Amino acid sequence: MLDALVRVTRAAICGSDLWPYKSMPHDDAGRRMGHEFIGVVDAVGSNVATIKVGDLVLSPFLWSDGSCVFCREGLQSECLHGGRYGFADVDGGQGEAVRVPQADGTLVVLPVRADDALMPSLLALTDVMGTGHHAALAAHVGPGKTVAVVGDGAVGLCGVIASKRLGAERIILLGNNPERIALGHEFGATDVVRERGEEAVELVRELTQYGAQSVLECVGLEQAVETALAIARPGGAIGRVGVPEHDSTPTGVAFWKNATMAGGPAPVRAYIEELLPDVLEGRIEPGRVFDRTGSIEDVPDGYRAMNDRDVLKFQIKP
Amino acid sequence: MLDALVRVTRAAICGSDLWPYKSMPHDDAGRRMGHEFIGVVDAVGSNVATIKVGDLVLSPFLWSDGSCVFCREGLQSECLHGGRYGFADVDGGQGEAVRVPQADGTLVVLPVRADDALMPSLLALTDVMGTGHHAALAAHVGPGKTVAVVGDGAVGLCGVIASKRLGAERIILLGNNPERIALGHEFGATDVVRERGEEAVELVRELTQYGAQSVLECVGLEQAVETALAIARPGGAIGRVGVPEHDSTPTGVAFWKNATMAGGPAPVRAYIEELLPDVLEGRIEPGRVFDRTGSIEDVPDGYRAMNDRDVLKFQIKP
Repeated sequence: MLDALVRVTRAAICGSDLWPYKSMPHDDAGRRMGHEFIGVVDAVGSNVATIKVGDLVLSPFLWSDGSCVFCREGLQSECLHGGRYGFADVDGGQGEAVRVPQADGTLVVLPVRADDALMPSLLALTDVMGTGHHAALAAHVGPGKTVAVVGDGAVGLCGVIASKRLGAERIILLGNNPERIALGHEFGATDVVRERGEEAVELVRELTQYGAQSVLECVGLEQAVETALAIARPGGAIGRVGVPEHDSTPTGVAFWKNATMAGGPAPVRAYIEELLPDVLEGRIEPGRVFDRTGSIEDVPDGYRAMNDRDVLKFQIKP
Repeated sequence: MLDALVRVTRAAICGSDLWPYKSMPHDDAGRRMGHEFIGVVDAVGSNVATIKVGDLVLSPFLWSDGSCVFCREGLQSECLHGGRYGFADVDGGQGEAVRVPQADGTLVVLPVRADDALMPSLLALTDVMGTGHHAALAAHVGPGKTVAVVGDGAVGLCGVIASKRLGAERIILLGNNPERIALGHEFGATDVVRERGEEAVELVRELTQYGAQSVLECVGLEQAVETALAIARPGGAIGRVGVPEHDSTPTGVAFWKNATMAGGPAPVRAYIEELLPDVLEGRIEPGRVFDRTGSIEDVPDGYRAMNDRDVLKFQIKP
C-alpha cells in the first residue's frame, strides 16, 4: 500500500476544470473534480516510507511514483505509474479528503502550518505557478531576454512571475482584463498589449523590432497559438502550456524563422523544490492570483464565477 | 562594392532544386539555379576587406553580411541584409561564375587547392552537412543519446554523421534505399528501419522502448513529420530541416508528451568553422554522398537522375 489519506485543508478550481463544466453531458453519478490541493495526512499505507500521519502536504496536479525513468529525469508528468486526479477511482481535490496514490513520489511535506498566511502561494505551486515556470523554461527565458506572455489568466500571470524570476529584462503581457493586467504589472510585466490577432502582432513588433525572444503561450486556443508564432523573434522559442483546443499548428511560420516550440503538461513535481524557497521567503507571491475564497458549498458558484470571468481563480477553504 | 566575382570550380545539385524542376511552368528566360559551390576569386569590390583575388572560397547556401544582429548571434540564415542565390539578380551556383553579394560576410577561404581530394566533403559544407548538423543540434543530440534520423537522402545521411560526431550512442536510420542505407551504416547508423508510417513507428518503439530522445526530420513531407512526432520519446526533441511541403502539423502529439520541435533553414555559415577541421583532418567524410560527377553539360541529366533516385547527389566539375 503506497497511498496516503489526505484531509484537504486548501484546494482550488483550475481553468481546465471549466472544460467539463461547460461541455460534459448531465450525469447523475457526477464526476470527481479538482487536482490542486494541500492537506493533512490522516493515514498512510504500510509501504509508505517518507510521508507521516500529521504531515502537511502539497500535491502536484498529477501523481507520480518518483522512481521511474521519467521521474528520475524530472519529467514526472510522464511517470510510467502515475496519473490524473479524478479518474479511474482516484479522488479529486475538491472534496473533504483524497486518497493519494504513490504518496512517497507525489507528496511534498510543507514546513509550515495549515493556517499559515503563505497558504495561497503554496497552493499555486500545485499547478499554475509550476506551469508558468514550465512555459518560461520551454521558451528559454533567461537574463536580459525580451519575453511575451500570451494570456492574462492565472497561468499567464504566473508566467510573468517566472519570467521575472529567471531574469527577463522586458516582459510584454498580452491580455485585456484590467484587474489581471494590473496584477501582471505588479508581478513584473513591463508592457501590455490589449489587442488581439493581427493588431497584437503589429504592436509587439513595434515594441520589439524583430519579435520576442521568448514567448509563453498560456491559452491553448488556435488564435493564441498563431499570435505566439507570429510574435516570436527569428531563432526564438515558444513555450506552450495552454491545453490545446485545436488539432493542428501552422508549420511554415516556425520553420522559416527557426523558432523552437516546446512545452506540454508541466512536471510540477520537479519544480516544487526549486520554487518552494522563493514562496517561503516571500520573493514570489503567486497566491495573489486567488481573488475569491469560499467553502466547499461555494464551489458551484466558484465555477460559475470563473466561467463568467468574474473571478480569476477560486480558492477553497473547506 | 561588397561583392566578389567567384569562378566556380565545384558545385552541386540540391534536393530542393528538384522542386522547381518538377513544378515550374515552362519559361523561355529560364531561371538561375544552384546554391552550393566552391570557387576561385577572380575580382573583388572596392569595399571587400578579407577576401582576395586568387582565394579558393566556399559559400554557404545563403549569403549574409556577417555583421547584423542575427549574424552576430550565429543565425546567418536570418541575416537582415542577406538572401538566396538565384533570386533578384543574384547568380546561381550551377554556372561558370557567381557574383557573390556581401563577400566578407558570406565566403570562407579554404586552406587547400581546388584540386584537393577533400573537395567533395568541403562542397558538402555548403549545405547538406551543415543542415544535418543543424538538425542534430535542434534535436539536442549529445553523448549517449538515442537518435532517429527520418530520411536517407543526403541531408539525412549527413544527420547520421553529425549525430555520431556529437556523441550519439545509437543512431536509427529510417530509409529504404539499399545503397543509402549501406552508406548510413558506414557513417555510424547502428540500426535501420526500412518500413514507413505505422510500421516504422512500431519498429522504432521496439528498438527504443519509449522512443528516440532525438529525432532528425530530414524529409519535409507530412508523413515524415508525423512519423518523427510519433517516434520521439516523451521529453524528446525533433530537429526538422526538411523544407515543409505541408501546411500544418498535428498539435496534440508533441504537446502531450512534452516534445520540443525546432529547426528550419540551417545557418550553415555559422557551422563551417566548426566542421571544417573535421573535414580537413578526415574525421568526417560527408563528400561520400556525391555518387556521380559531371560537367556543366551533364547538369540536366543530373537533375533527371536525382529526380529518378538513380543518383543520391550530383557534383559538378565545370
